[in-house]
Amino acid sequence: MDRIAIIDLGSNSIRFIVMQIGEQGSYKLIYQEKKSIRLAEGMTQETRLLTEEAQERALKCLTVYAHIIEVQKVKKVLAVATAAVRNAVNGASFLKRVHMTTGISMTIISGRAEAALGFSGVIHTIDRKDFLLFDLGGASVEISLVKNKKRLHSVSIPYGAVTLTEMFQSSGTVSQSKLTEMKKFIQAKLDKITWFPDTPLPVIGVGGTVRNLAKVHQRSTGYPLPKLHNYNLPSEDLFEMVKDITSKTFEERQRISGLSSERADIIIAGALTVQEIIRKAKSSYLTISGCGLREGLFFHYYDPIYDKDGDKRQHMLINSVKNYLHTVTGEYAFHSRYVTALALSMFDQWKHVHGLSSRMRTLLMAAGFLHDAGSMINYYNHARHSAYIAANAHIFGWSQKEQVMCSLLCAFHHGFSGKYTKNNEASKILSEEEMLDVRKAALFLALAEGLDESQEQCITQVICTSAKDAMDLRIYTSRNNFDVPAHATGHLLREFEKVFRVPLRVQWFPGSRNANKLVQTARKL
Amino acid sequence: MDRIAIIDLGSNSIRFIVMQIGEQGSYKLIYQEKKSIRLAEGMTQETRLLTEEAQERALKCLTVYAHIIEVQKVKKVLAVATAAVRNAVNGASFLKRVHMTTGISMTIISGRAEAALGFSGVIHTIDRKDFLLFDLGGASVEISLVKNKKRLHSVSIPYGAVTLTEMFQSSGTVSQSKLTEMKKFIQAKLDKITWFPDTPLPVIGVGGTVRNLAKVHQRSTGYPLPKLHNYNLPSEDLFEMVKDITSKTFEERQRISGLSSERADIIIAGALTVQEIIRKAKSSYLTISGCGLREGLFFHYYDPIYDKDGDKRQHMLINSVKNYLHTVTGEYAFHSRYVTALALSMFDQWKHVHGLSSRMRTLLMAAGFLHDAGSMINYYNHARHSAYIAANAHIFGWSQKEQVMCSLLCAFHHGFSGKYTKNNEASKILSEEEMLDVRKAALFLALAEGLDESQEQCITQVICTSAKDAMDLRIYTSRNNFDVPAHATGHLLREFEKVFRVPLRVQWFPGSRNANKLVQTARKL
Repeated sequence: MDRIAIIDLGSNSIRFIVMQIGEQGSYKLIYQEKKSIRLAEGMTQETRLLTEEAQERALKCLTVYAHIIEVQKVKKVLAVATAAVRNAVNGASFLKRVHMTTGISMTIISGRAEAALGFSGVIHTIDRKDFLLFDLGGASVEISLVKNKKRLHSVSIPYGAVTLTEMFQSSGTVSQSKLTEMKKFIQAKLDKITWFPDTPLPVIGVGGTVRNLAKVHQRSTGYPLPKLHNYNLPSEDLFEMVKDITSKTFEERQRISGLSSERADIIIAGALTVQEIIRKAKSSYLTISGCGLREGLFFHYYDPIYDKDGDKRQHMLINSVKNYLHTVTGEYAFHSRYVTALALSMFDQWKHVHGLSSRMRTLLMAAGFLHDAGSMINYYNHARHSAYIAANAHIFGWSQKEQVMCSLLCAFHHGFSGKYTKNNEASKILSEEEMLDVRKAALFLALAEGLDESQEQCITQVICTSAKDAMDLRIYTSRNNFDVPAHATGHLLREFEKVFRVPLRVQWFPGSRNANKLVQTARKL
Repeated sequence: MDRIAIIDLGSNSIRFIVMQIGEQGSYKLIYQEKKSIRLAEGMTQETRLLTEEAQERALKCLTVYAHIIEVQKVKKVLAVATAAVRNAVNGASFLKRVHMTTGISMTIISGRAEAALGFSGVIHTIDRKDFLLFDLGGASVEISLVKNKKRLHSVSIPYGAVTLTEMFQSSGTVSQSKLTEMKKFIQAKLDKITWFPDTPLPVIGVGGTVRNLAKVHQRSTGYPLPKLHNYNLPSEDLFEMVKDITSKTFEERQRISGLSSERADIIIAGALTVQEIIRKAKSSYLTISGCGLREGLFFHYYDPIYDKDGDKRQHMLINSVKNYLHTVTGEYAFHSRYVTALALSMFDQWKHVHGLSSRMRTLLMAAGFLHDAGSMINYYNHARHSAYIAANAHIFGWSQKEQVMCSLLCAFHHGFSGKYTKNNEASKILSEEEMLDVRKAALFLALAEGLDESQEQCITQVICTSAKDAMDLRIYTSRNNFDVPAHATGHLLREFEKVFRVPLRVQWFPGSRNANKLVQTARKL
């Protein structure tokens, strides 16, 4: 078991995490801390000096972290400093002081390295191919163009939320002319980027400013999930919010629901920067990434040891689900894999009937793996607990809607429940069509679960066909009777007819001597 | 690792559970199934024969269970048959048939044994001393008088919800005169109990009828918890419900929210029986036990092996929490125990200031053990996940209110959150005073958690005193600096003043060379 500590000393905040790597390379976060220490504060363009006060704030924090690193038996420390230290003339001597005081060896990373690491943190946790990425910090903003999951171009602009605020003195009430001046300044910097795409491109944003803007948006719209990572903020709404924020006094901004009061001074500079990037990219929404530099540092360490061939990065969601299950149970029961194989077999054979997307197939697979996880909370109502876990676990590679869908698939693995849906706030982010898709996919999971009720994997094959007025399911079982699975699937027929508009005709073939293909498939999952 | 299967072949339903006993005797439910097979149906007072149809329904079910027992590698099967088989003239031959067909050896238990086992299931899962207990089944009702956790008297009356329904033909619409007749019949049976207490006594009820009545009550009052075990149903409300139910037609009863449609026929006989027992006991409420015969059978097996001296039965809640944590993590981190010791130390020293009950102390202890359990779902927001676990885990020995309180203590272990409380439906069952008590106790947990932020157990002692206008906390730490704990507790001071109406004055004593009493205490917890 390895423990890796990661420290990101930014210009506005300092962030600290401890990751634990266990069996088969499964990893999890076991500690995290964040403090707004404003290292760049008071560092003017002229002097470019980290002030004594700012250094002391950072040192105090780092002493605490060094202490925790020692106690937690951390094997490896990856500590980096970004723009504030990079731009300061006394940056190197400050890092010597850090080392003397705390024993932590901290590296200054270049804007280019910062962009690379930020990209890595995002590409390991959001399953998208083409996008414009930016990471807005206190003293710089890194922008990258990503095509087919590769970073084509990057640039680091040495202005961030803290430094722009000081430069334009925009911490209080800001006049319209000052706002225009700031916008023009930011636009000029962006216009210098030669490779900035002309055609509209989705934008993913990283950093405290975007997280805060997303939080304000979630509060104002009553969004039912408490999650920022992979949240989509429509550009129209963003522009409205920026207009509102920039017209308010400092005190008024402090009272905005969702806005951190520590950020009420620098939010204007931050929000304007975000707005100008989105505008220039002509993106219709901004996706928030809660992961960036720190996660990038982690994977920079992890990948060469545990994912040499990049397999885990390939099927992000499924591998992330497996990773999660490994951290909690060491190994998940074969029953879950077998049920998944069975559900997918039905999904695939009836593809032309249900018309569900291949993405829904992936969600069904994820739900299959997770469907019994809730038993660790309580066997009673474990479908509901599995749904809670799916909705809240540290799993990457799905959109927030997809996470809700997978959670519902888990909840319905013994059958659909209208009552559960009604009381589940999160399900309200799905459209009626999406909910119907979930109910269809859930039936394959529920049928599979019922067919392996006795957890002995005796169904050797299912053959799924459809006629004009019915769907047909032929079930081959190695047992001589089919009481158990018949007993456990009978109650699903009504829901089947409701959802697919035709009845399901089930035929049983006991005493099957076929090779158990489903077990073979399950072993490979 | 042992697996124990338990089968309870009742007169109305058959129930099947598999329990797993792991390390250090920690046990958990891993499988459960229930089927309404109506074994007593058609068995008249005259013939007293289990009908062929009823036998076949039972055999079909038992074949399924036998199969699961085989697949699940169950070591021990405890299978009992109650009133229907006991009262039938062909009961013994039916059990022979069961053995021939399924291999399951089933024992007929006497009414007396049934009462004893039901009592055992309740006394292991509800922490009460004095009560009247009844278990209403399909063909009998067992009543026991419990004083100081001992069963003083028991009786088994050979009439239950199914047999009374057939006797009085009360499955459809029932006339007022028929109802009176039924009540009189039941009263006459109860009046024969010589030891029935004269003074009011709380009543605990077991069985499908009481669970269903509780569910109807929960639905009609919009009760926010989905849990029946240890639910209190006020007698006034019960009498109203019985009046309503008995005045309805069969079809109308089928539509009652919360009432199982399978039970719409026998609910009148069942509800009247419950009502007459409550009335005679002059109890102001009925407590529902979701545990009974099956759990009793389990503990009958478990106690002589794993709890010889009865220690686990002594401190039910705390031992149940420990049991739960053992089933999920094998061992819980020492940090949790140490934080618990610290929180309890503050609780005890400030006892005269906060005035909280000793029961709240027990809840604080439970929350201390559970406060980090949520990390297995996600480190982010783990306080909220721990709260979910506390609210849903298979833990016994608390009332539903107490469980909600403990869940809130977990949720607030980094500090109180008004937003969490607002969105948490369950917290609405607490009064304002109870919520204030929770906030007080939560502060001790949050202070303790902050003091062990670095998880190195360096606080050797805390001394808690109070003056007229302040509370004083003197903290002794073996470290030479106190940056970490000061950093992690500072944000609690405001909440402290809000809740206790006086400020908290903190004094630090670094470099303490005292023996670490808190570690010593924690080891013993």
